[in-house]
Amino acid sequence: MNSTQTRRLLAGLAVCVLSGAMAGGVGARDEGMWLLTSPPRAALKERYGFEPSPQWLEHVQKAAVRFSTGGSGSIISGDGLVMTNHHVGSDVLAQLSTKARNLLETGYYARTRGEELRCPDLELNVLWQIRDVTGEVNAGVKEGMSASDAGEARQRAIADIAKKAQDETKFKCEVVTLYQGARYHLYCYKRYTDVRLVFAPEQEIAFFGGDTDNFEFPRFNLDMCFFRIYEDGLPLQAEHFLSWSTGSKEGDLALVIGHPGSTQRLYTTDHLKFMRDTMIPERLRQMWRSEVRSQIFMGRSAENQRTGAEDFFGVANGRKAFMGELAGLLDPAVMGSKRAEEMRLRDAVRANPEWSKQWGDGWDLIAGAEHARLAWFRRWFVFERGMNSDLIGFARMIVRHAEEVGKPNGERLRDFRDSALASLYTQMYSPAPVHELLEVNRVEGVLLFMAEMLGGEDPLVVQALGGKSPKARAEELVLGTTLKDAAARKKLVEGGSAALAESKDPMIVFWKLLDRESREMRARFEREVEAAEQAGYAKIAAAKFAVEGENTYPDATFTLRLAFGPIKGYQEDGKEIPPYTDFAGLYERYQDRKGQAGFDLPERWLRGKGRLDLTTPFNFVCGADIIGGNSGSPVVNTKGEVIGLIFDGNIQSLVGAFQYDGAQNRAVAVDSRAIIESLRKLYDAGPLADEMQGKSR
Amino acid sequence: MNSTQTRRLLAGLAVCVLSGAMAGGVGARDEGMWLLTSPPRAALKERYGFEPSPQWLEHVQKAAVRFSTGGSGSIISGDGLVMTNHHVGSDVLAQLSTKARNLLETGYYARTRGEELRCPDLELNVLWQIRDVTGEVNAGVKEGMSASDAGEARQRAIADIAKKAQDETKFKCEVVTLYQGARYHLYCYKRYTDVRLVFAPEQEIAFFGGDTDNFEFPRFNLDMCFFRIYEDGLPLQAEHFLSWSTGSKEGDLALVIGHPGSTQRLYTTDHLKFMRDTMIPERLRQMWRSEVRSQIFMGRSAENQRTGAEDFFGVANGRKAFMGELAGLLDPAVMGSKRAEEMRLRDAVRANPEWSKQWGDGWDLIAGAEHARLAWFRRWFVFERGMNSDLIGFARMIVRHAEEVGKPNGERLRDFRDSALASLYTQMYSPAPVHELLEVNRVEGVLLFMAEMLGGEDPLVVQALGGKSPKARAEELVLGTTLKDAAARKKLVEGGSAALAESKDPMIVFWKLLDRESREMRARFEREVEAAEQAGYAKIAAAKFAVEGENTYPDATFTLRLAFGPIKGYQEDGKEIPPYTDFAGLYERYQDRKGQAGFDLPERWLRGKGRLDLTTPFNFVCGADIIGGNSGSPVVNTKGEVIGLIFDGNIQSLVGAFQYDGAQNRAVAVDSRAIIESLRKLYDAGPLADEMQGKSR
Repeated sequence: MNSTQTRRLLAGLAVCVLSGAMAGGVGARDEGMWLLTSPPRAALKERYGFEPSPQWLEHVQKAAVRFSTGGSGSIISGDGLVMTNHHVGSDVLAQLSTKARNLLETGYYARTRGEELRCPDLELNVLWQIRDVTGEVNAGVKEGMSASDAGEARQRAIADIAKKAQDETKFKCEVVTLYQGARYHLYCYKRYTDVRLVFAPEQEIAFFGGDTDNFEFPRFNLDMCFFRIYEDGLPLQAEHFLSWSTGSKEGDLALVIGHPGSTQRLYTTDHLKFMRDTMIPERLRQMWRSEVRSQIFMGRSAENQRTGAEDFFGVANGRKAFMGELAGLLDPAVMGSKRAEEMRLRDAVRANPEWSKQWGDGWDLIAGAEHARLAWFRRWFVFERGMNSDLIGFARMIVRHAEEVGKPNGERLRDFRDSALASLYTQMYSPAPVHELLEVNRVEGVLLFMAEMLGGEDPLVVQALGGKSPKARAEELVLGTTLKDAAARKKLVEGGSAALAESKDPMIVFWKLLDRESREMRARFEREVEAAEQAGYAKIAAAKFAVEGENTYPDATFTLRLAFGPIKGYQEDGKEIPPYTDFAGLYERYQDRKGQAGFDLPERWLRGKGRLDLTTPFNFVCGADIIGGNSGSPVVNTKGEVIGLIFDGNIQSLVGAFQYDGAQNRAVAVDSRAIIESLRKLYDAGPLADEMQGKSR
Repeated sequence: MNSTQTRRLLAGLAVCVLSGAMAGGVGARDEGMWLLTSPPRAALKERYGFEPSPQWLEHVQKAAVRFSTGGSGSIISGDGLVMTNHHVGSDVLAQLSTKARNLLETGYYARTRGEELRCPDLELNVLWQIRDVTGEVNAGVKEGMSASDAGEARQRAIADIAKKAQDETKFKCEVVTLYQGARYHLYCYKRYTDVRLVFAPEQEIAFFGGDTDNFEFPRFNLDMCFFRIYEDGLPLQAEHFLSWSTGSKEGDLALVIGHPGSTQRLYTTDHLKFMRDTMIPERLRQMWRSEVRSQIFMGRSAENQRTGAEDFFGVANGRKAFMGELAGLLDPAVMGSKRAEEMRLRDAVRANPEWSKQWGDGWDLIAGAEHARLAWFRRWFVFERGMNSDLIGFARMIVRHAEEVGKPNGERLRDFRDSALASLYTQMYSPAPVHELLEVNRVEGVLLFMAEMLGGEDPLVVQALGGKSPKARAEELVLGTTLKDAAARKKLVEGGSAALAESKDPMIVFWKLLDRESREMRARFEREVEAAEQAGYAKIAAAKFAVEGENTYPDATFTLRLAFGPIKGYQEDGKEIPPYTDFAGLYERYQDRKGQAGFDLPERWLRGKGRLDLTTPFNFVCGADIIGGNSGSPVVNTKGEVIGLIFDGNIQSLVGAFQYDGAQNRAVAVDSRAIIESLRKLYDAGPLADEMQGKSR
């Protein structure tokens, strides 16, 4: 994984970010990650008597925040205070840490604005404008075009639309593929890059229970982190922010506003089989490997422990998510219901000659593409999922940047289009430290991974190793490169192709060896798989609209969605799990598991127990349909007030990438009352609590 | 892995136990795992002025012990006291532990004979007779036979020879394939099954430094464990046992008598490529996976921590060993020298028309077999390396036993030949506890592994899952089977085919589903790969004898060998590593790494520091050529006295499976003086130290 992918993984769940297929419709009660432009009005009204007004929807939309680290958040004060999860902010906490000051361990509280710490490369986006551009995107597609040509035509149109909108609005503009190509929306975001750390608790309480309790419930986690947006050097004066509630109770409607990363609910059974038999097993192999290698690295010294922790937690989290997904896909009940659903739709299409002619081959298009890619899957995987190193990522960006920016906007790789460049530069020129030993370990891992996947004899592997062992080669590359320094990266980028041609930087030279084949694999995927998927799913989506009507939601795309459901417990192994936990439960669990890995409590929590109201609700579950990327989403009541902060799903929800089960799937949140109680009683952070509760400015 | 394989892994390194190819000859100084029947006389005499007498050789042979858990040991008193590693005994320590008494944590010392704890299924073998049976084995092989037919003829001869010898001697008799088929030796062992635990230290001091320091040096480990052999209810009155030394010093010749498991030094480069690109990566994937799943399991409760620890340590150890092997094979220097060596031999063969005709196709035979097996490698791997569950192992043994014992001895699967049955029953009727939760986790792991390797659609996977999720199916199998109970197993075995046909035991029914294909994969391997390897390597070995002479050693086969080398430090990253560590160094390392996983010390060692002579040598390295399986080997001086106890190799020695480098490869041992000092000063075990030092009987 490259650095961005690593970060994404951190945000609650693995976020694959494919374009979204349409899902739901026939779904269970409270299913769905709905567009705010077409909310589940009927369901909300019928089941909960709630009718969100256009103002309500605009308000929550403009108070919602997307994190470039791959999670969600919300603005919760007029001075631009932003709430998210600790595990969404932890990447930044690691960047801001040094050998002498480990913020993950100690937490942080800026008592004055002056103490707020500027984040090196964090970017926050707030969705400001939405426009349906389906017609414009498809304008260049002609009758009889091949799927691959049609895909290219659409990509050119998408690049133009985004660039034009960006030039006009100065916002960050993206065209989002919804219902896997049945609809295209233009999203324009306010983009904030001066973001400062306000508060974080200790990781021990944010991630209490560690890997053991991750994706489980009951839970006892203060998984929160607060930032502040600055504009022109001053705190953002926010037009839209969420007010604080006085709390919630069992049965209340919980509304979740956030950015679910990726679901695959409309995937055909053939596509799911590809996920089950090829993609997920390969991802898992990679993660088990990374998890073990991370632990070995961390074991070598206290400093490695600090610098390697983010990779480790990210990978362990992703591994647990993928294991849950795989278990779901191997459960005959899940695949059986998917198959039955697909059969119903295909039968309906088959029964209508016109439909059959238009859409009947949708499923076969996808089956064909997923089958064909098996032949080159491993090579593709190595390049597109195997390059987990910041320095390799920088080298790739720099080498490609020089080539891509010389091309017309519509013909570039997506990441280098004009509309994407600002965010790219933020990432590329980040002053965040690059840890040499960590990078040596990562690059060695990349080289070993290449050799294991492609074989030691593969010409590319031989070239990549350059006659050295993986470890010696990794040391040569990492110790020798100047790319660890942001200024050196900037100089290379600004020097363009000429500077690059001359560069003897070993990491640049290394990536030049790999780039041709890496680009080929990517192009091949876009041409042979993605285009076929889009063509196939557009047909299936059209069929679904025709058969089931349009009142439905698209698969998740890491864009803003509304999910909903009651605060409600569930049954597990015949046992009733109540919806709330409290502080008393935290201390009981601590006593039970004392000394086990992941179950330590910070001194502050041990000493301060007497000051806390132990009956304070701590975490709760609700039926809202969420997935990775939703981490950090606010949970609001019908008045739009914060009642909680999403940080996880239960283990039963992991199959949610493919299927939602209202009886069992639960989103897990920190209760708003636990946030206030701990800030006031343990962290001496009354002013922060006051700001959130609107008691002072 | 099945239970036996798991245990093997525990013993220091991965022990693959293939038949051994010839190695060495051209090797570096002090290279070699020599047969005691053809010791390296010239090298010992020229370099060290040592000429072992036949009596010396017989004495150390008959004092050496092979552990059924996959390691080595030695008899060190006239009352049958046996010394080995803690990590060789740890499997037994786990079996003897209960929720209330965790011997791995607390250690154990039997102050009286009455307190010595009988081990449930430990079997010790002492090599008593050796005979060259090459002519008899090859007697049935006729000119013009196919490799596969010749292989079958040899197997029938081998079965007959072993059975006949066993009937005559009452010893446990095995025919060992040496030089990959150039020689066959009949080994007859005394077999001891009444073995009792005498002493073990706490695992924290036995495995101080954990995974981080494993395979590293300097080291500070008291990796020792003592058992006693009983015969007819009384301590064995040993004819041959090793006496204790007064210690060693830098430069002394160290002689290691033990059972190295498996090396692949004569492997052709094509065979090594198969190891590098297929076998080792697949093993590693399996191990990373098992390591992570073990940790997850152990995280769930303190009891899981206890019952899962053995799997975890075994897998982590194997993973580190395989990573070292893979790194070696990816190092162009290693493969380059292998290639050059092979070229020299092939050129010599090519230059001689007679040789060329007789042996010239040896290399191609092997290349062809390794290439052909790729087509069915995954299925073979699932059955032959993927069944890591005691209960599945029992079911397999029982189902096959019923079928095999009905066949003539020469036609049975090797494990069911008459000469192997006694050991098989010891294992099958072991009263060692089967931990239900651990087994559920293992069986779930097996089912997930099958699905990941073969695909969720594979008919065998579908059958194995029986319409359930892997977890639900695992629970059904483990909770439902009677095979957890030794008496139930015995009843089924003794009931034979009739009892089996009627059995509704879910685990028996489960294995019956799998057995046909599992047998097919095994037969296919024996027919298409093993036979071709034996034919090919026999030719290569003959060529090597012709070109280089016969003064050489065969690849390791988990049979008795002599290795040798001086006590001597080495260079690492330009730094001089001295050969000895001491107790003072232990406490320094403890201070340095305090609080990190693996670096805790037992209370006894913290409290007792003042009582120890801190200058006592603790661990040392010597140049002897060892590998996994050698764990627990005694290190003796030229007088045959114990100067140390092998427990590890350094990281540079991991490539030793393929190549020995005298400058860097080192064996790591506990110093005999540290054993005595800690027993007397910390463990209040003076009588035990006296027994070892011959001070009392």
